[in-house]
Amino acid sequence: MRVCIIGSSGHANFVFQGVDQDPSIQVVGVAPGSDGEDVGKFLQAAQKRGQQPQRYDDYRKMLDELQPDIVAVNCHFGDHGKVNFEVLSRGMHLFAEKPLATTMEELAVLKREYDRSGAEVAAMFGLRYNPAFYTAWHAVQEGKVGEVRLINAQKSYRLGSRPEFFKHRQSYGGTIPWVGSHAIDWIYWFAGQEFVSVMAHHSTTANRGLGSMEMTALCHFKLTNEVFASVNIDYLRPSTAETHGDDRVRVAGTKGVIEVLHGKAYLVSEDEQGTKELPLMENQGIFYDFVKQVRGEGKCLVSAKDSFVVTEACLRAREAADKEQIVYF
Amino acid sequence: MRVCIIGSSGHANFVFQGVDQDPSIQVVGVAPGSDGEDVGKFLQAAQKRGQQPQRYDDYRKMLDELQPDIVAVNCHFGDHGKVNFEVLSRGMHLFAEKPLATTMEELAVLKREYDRSGAEVAAMFGLRYNPAFYTAWHAVQEGKVGEVRLINAQKSYRLGSRPEFFKHRQSYGGTIPWVGSHAIDWIYWFAGQEFVSVMAHHSTTANRGLGSMEMTALCHFKLTNEVFASVNIDYLRPSTAETHGDDRVRVAGTKGVIEVLHGKAYLVSEDEQGTKELPLMENQGIFYDFVKQVRGEGKCLVSAKDSFVVTEACLRAREAADKEQIVYF
Repeated sequence: MRVCIIGSSGHANFVFQGVDQDPSIQVVGVAPGSDGEDVGKFLQAAQKRGQQPQRYDDYRKMLDELQPDIVAVNCHFGDHGKVNFEVLSRGMHLFAEKPLATTMEELAVLKREYDRSGAEVAAMFGLRYNPAFYTAWHAVQEGKVGEVRLINAQKSYRLGSRPEFFKHRQSYGGTIPWVGSHAIDWIYWFAGQEFVSVMAHHSTTANRGLGSMEMTALCHFKLTNEVFASVNIDYLRPSTAETHGDDRVRVAGTKGVIEVLHGKAYLVSEDEQGTKELPLMENQGIFYDFVKQVRGEGKCLVSAKDSFVVTEACLRAREAADKEQIVYF
Repeated sequence: MRVCIIGSSGHANFVFQGVDQDPSIQVVGVAPGSDGEDVGKFLQAAQKRGQQPQRYDDYRKMLDELQPDIVAVNCHFGDHGKVNFEVLSRGMHLFAEKPLATTMEELAVLKREYDRSGAEVAAMFGLRYNPAFYTAWHAVQEGKVGEVRLINAQKSYRLGSRPEFFKHRQSYGGTIPWVGSHAIDWIYWFAGQEFVSVMAHHSTTANRGLGSMEMTALCHFKLTNEVFASVNIDYLRPSTAETHGDDRVRVAGTKGVIEVLHGKAYLVSEDEQGTKELPLMENQGIFYDFVKQVRGEGKCLVSAKDSFVVTEACLRAREAADKEQIVYF
């Protein structure tokens, strides 16, 4: 399995987790996807594992010359759509940082290209594989909370220091698509319903000079079957906090409530007295899961449909926030 | 201080907490406020404390004959507006179950009557006095989280068995005004901002035969200064849960995050490493606080303005949910 990496602004390090699990996965080329990206860290990660990928300045040339099986894309978020298109138009399998694109127009073009390509696609919704979320989702699949009725999801990050391209909507895409996409993905994944409408707000207030980057956002989704879901997003977690992120989801159903909090999964259900901390389930991680799908050995937990639908939901939520209007799917 | 109680469908037992603190508070009369209400429990509560209130069938007659200083109203929620009007039109101080009214028309009439009356009003937002919420609010007042930017509030209850009048919008008013009002109150109280708009949804799905009673609701508020706030409400807490309610609030500000969870208050702020559980502050409870305001000895934590504004916010949120439209204040 020959893999190229484009860009260095996201989570393509998932690829190296896969390499560690299966050294027949070879990183053969690395190139920037956006102006000024330094891909040195991925070259080093490969070299540490005894692999010698070629470094390219032009990712198109890299794709044409190396003809990889899978391309991992993680450039500036505003360039995702364009670079992903180059990958799919060559019929290569795409492992792409989320969101897949940052405008609805690019997303539509990409979707058509995907339908034509015969390639596999997964967005980097790696938090599905976080043991607490993974465990909670399996419990919901087993019917532990009955029918899902209400979901609340949270992403709260330390601000830390952010690269220049975060300061501009054009290159950053917005906090709802970037940070919020994980939480919007949990909603879609846990609800097992389709999105109907979204209302949202976001604000750049108190963003410490970060241009148009939103510090806070709040999204309000209606899904089919009158399932409702909220997402709250902020960069307000103080640097003094124990961890970088405070990721949460709470799923209330007709026979119980499950939640992920502080890296643990808690269930209270009709079946048992009191709240129970669930033993965490381990898994193979997102990239290796995707490789297996490409090999025809199974289905990746993140489907192409999920990747496109959640990207669309992010962009529609951002539109709702920009316009302060309800947006329908 | 002579007190009458009208109705038996809400939390007028707050009055007896006040009696226990100051036996000069005398419950002098008790009457139903809605058809079929049995006020026996309040007569017994008074008798246990050596007081002998008169029992009336007609609350208007009771008010006219006994001329109480304060009237505690807690009849069927759909009758709040009408009964509260009778109290204020007699110039008596009103300690009223929330919401103050269940239609915007009744609320407007009541507000005019309040402005005319010279009486004091407080809605029974007794959860402000819950030690964890009380402590968290004081920490926010002291600037522990900086400027408030984002609030998420939760009310989750066991369904248990609900009286017949919950089954009808006319008498119940809706789950957003009844259960959600507490959480909407926390938002207003913690934010220190005014409401700008609200979007909401609610659903009767899976309500186990309870007519038009909504089992789930989700509200999305915009406040001044681009402060955003969500409220999630459900009756989905299983009977097996440790406690009846799972009340929460999370307040994220420019220098930290405070939250109330499982009856405790947690702070993470720039000032100190890690998350800190705050020592809980005790207080005198809502009714005694209101009595002191009536005596001219201080300000009740729940002002008349708060009571009217939060009632309005509940009714506008319910309207947003009924119409599936954004409603502006």
